[in-house]
Amino acid sequence: MSFKITILGSSGALPAYGRFPSSQFIEIQNRFFLVDSGEGTQMQLKRYQLPYHKINHIFISHLHGDHYLGLAGLLFTMHLQRRVNDLHIYSHRGLDEILLAQLKHSHSVLHYKIHFHPIHPENRDPLFEDQALTVKTIPLLHKIPCTGFVFREKIKPLRINKPKLPNEMLLQDIARLKTGADILDESGKIIYKNEDLTLPPKHSFAYAYCSDTAYNEKMTEALRGVDLLYHEATFLESEKEKAVETLHSTASQAATIALKAGVKTLMIGHISARYREPDPLLEEAKSIFPSTVLAIEGETVELEP
Amino acid sequence: MSFKITILGSSGALPAYGRFPSSQFIEIQNRFFLVDSGEGTQMQLKRYQLPYHKINHIFISHLHGDHYLGLAGLLFTMHLQRRVNDLHIYSHRGLDEILLAQLKHSHSVLHYKIHFHPIHPENRDPLFEDQALTVKTIPLLHKIPCTGFVFREKIKPLRINKPKLPNEMLLQDIARLKTGADILDESGKIIYKNEDLTLPPKHSFAYAYCSDTAYNEKMTEALRGVDLLYHEATFLESEKEKAVETLHSTASQAATIALKAGVKTLMIGHISARYREPDPLLEEAKSIFPSTVLAIEGETVELEP
Repeated sequence: MSFKITILGSSGALPAYGRFPSSQFIEIQNRFFLVDSGEGTQMQLKRYQLPYHKINHIFISHLHGDHYLGLAGLLFTMHLQRRVNDLHIYSHRGLDEILLAQLKHSHSVLHYKIHFHPIHPENRDPLFEDQALTVKTIPLLHKIPCTGFVFREKIKPLRINKPKLPNEMLLQDIARLKTGADILDESGKIIYKNEDLTLPPKHSFAYAYCSDTAYNEKMTEALRGVDLLYHEATFLESEKEKAVETLHSTASQAATIALKAGVKTLMIGHISARYREPDPLLEEAKSIFPSTVLAIEGETVELEP
Repeated sequence: MSFKITILGSSGALPAYGRFPSSQFIEIQNRFFLVDSGEGTQMQLKRYQLPYHKINHIFISHLHGDHYLGLAGLLFTMHLQRRVNDLHIYSHRGLDEILLAQLKHSHSVLHYKIHFHPIHPENRDPLFEDQALTVKTIPLLHKIPCTGFVFREKIKPLRINKPKLPNEMLLQDIARLKTGADILDESGKIIYKNEDLTLPPKHSFAYAYCSDTAYNEKMTEALRGVDLLYHEATFLESEKEKAVETLHSTASQAATIALKAGVKTLMIGHISARYREPDPLLEEAKSIFPSTVLAIEGETVELEP
């Protein structure tokens, strides 16, 4: 039932000081996702020995090169390594045109199917949904159409209160208890009330990815109940003008969003190449929102109770 | 007057064991070229502190992803770092369509001009020519249209035989001597014969880049007089069938081409991900053509007399 985010790239538009452009590998209850795939993503997936063949869903926030230029290489590698499972790509329109041109001119017929799901940011329905979680978009404010993503676990099954469980209980009845049902006899009479044998479910986690964006209070609504928010922090507050001009955020602005949205933890990344060391950005964010961490390549954050 | 080749990527189609896909940075007499630009090229250029802003001409051998997927990232980086000089790209048709789609969907208007020069392999004219050198194509045999490139220095100026030089000699006359002219007086009478004051020019070097290709003896004609030949060696001879099937070469085949073409030195690269260590490929090539070296990332080969 794990929920883990591994940082593959933490750099802004210009890769610098060994930092790679944006990409994150996400594992939620044995499902594997990729969010953005800047240049070098496939090398980073290999370097950190992540099971990239298990990725079935890739979400691309926008079509600036530092967020998607590593995608084609990964797709070709999956092909060469004989992937057969379908792959789903969620992106603003245009990526389909680019990928089709790349496939056409390399004369490639992939061994697996790619399903392209265009993002319509005004549509509030989940982009992805299954038994365990949903992925919805967050409207971001950038120079070109750009969306964030919230990965939100659904309510989990009730936990069995084992000390209270009678010695003989059918497996089917245990399954029923986990869904909230009482246990009945053949005539329909309650033998065991659900609340006597169960405990509340484990916490359902939510993770939000917001890169790239200007300061945008409107997004806080979509961030309610989020445990971990990744928010870009391209600049220090001392370069706020540059942030405004380029529709990026400062570390202070990222922290302010985290504060207003009431998230538990903030992670900052997308650090401009002008900063050799990201620590001043971390300090700035912490002064407003103490529970802030840096996105560090190769590090995995696990959401735990 | 230097002639240097720096290896940025030595890997086959699948980057493995930290090896990057194909790319080489070439400096000839203060001119700077890039040949192929696999994913991660811009990171490699930075890692090895190469003056990538001085690159004015980029040659792409073919449109398999491992040979060009790093190009767009480099172009965007040049833009963000305020490049203004024109850039020339030489490639088979299709790359223009891909780059235009990438520029369109990122809403990018670059600060510099890109001149796209489509490669027509049947055309034997130089792709590039200036005072010092020419770049011509070499026909390769691969699954999609694919060309190699020969960088060939023109005949260099005659060297002045300094001990023989009279004490008083106009600079203009020295320049004339270097071109092979005699020195005349005002009436047109020879004062100094050129051959008395000059020595033969320094050696003009030639470098050939051949990746990817099946064994193809036809290319040897284009390789006459080449000092250094880079030839792909994706497989060992024990996997020759795989080489034939994929239109790649074995180390033995690369060495045989070097032998038949009579080049001075062979460099092998484009090593398949199945080989953790490239040394067996080097040993195999050396058994046929002893003057073989490995393409090693970050290493620079300088052509010297």
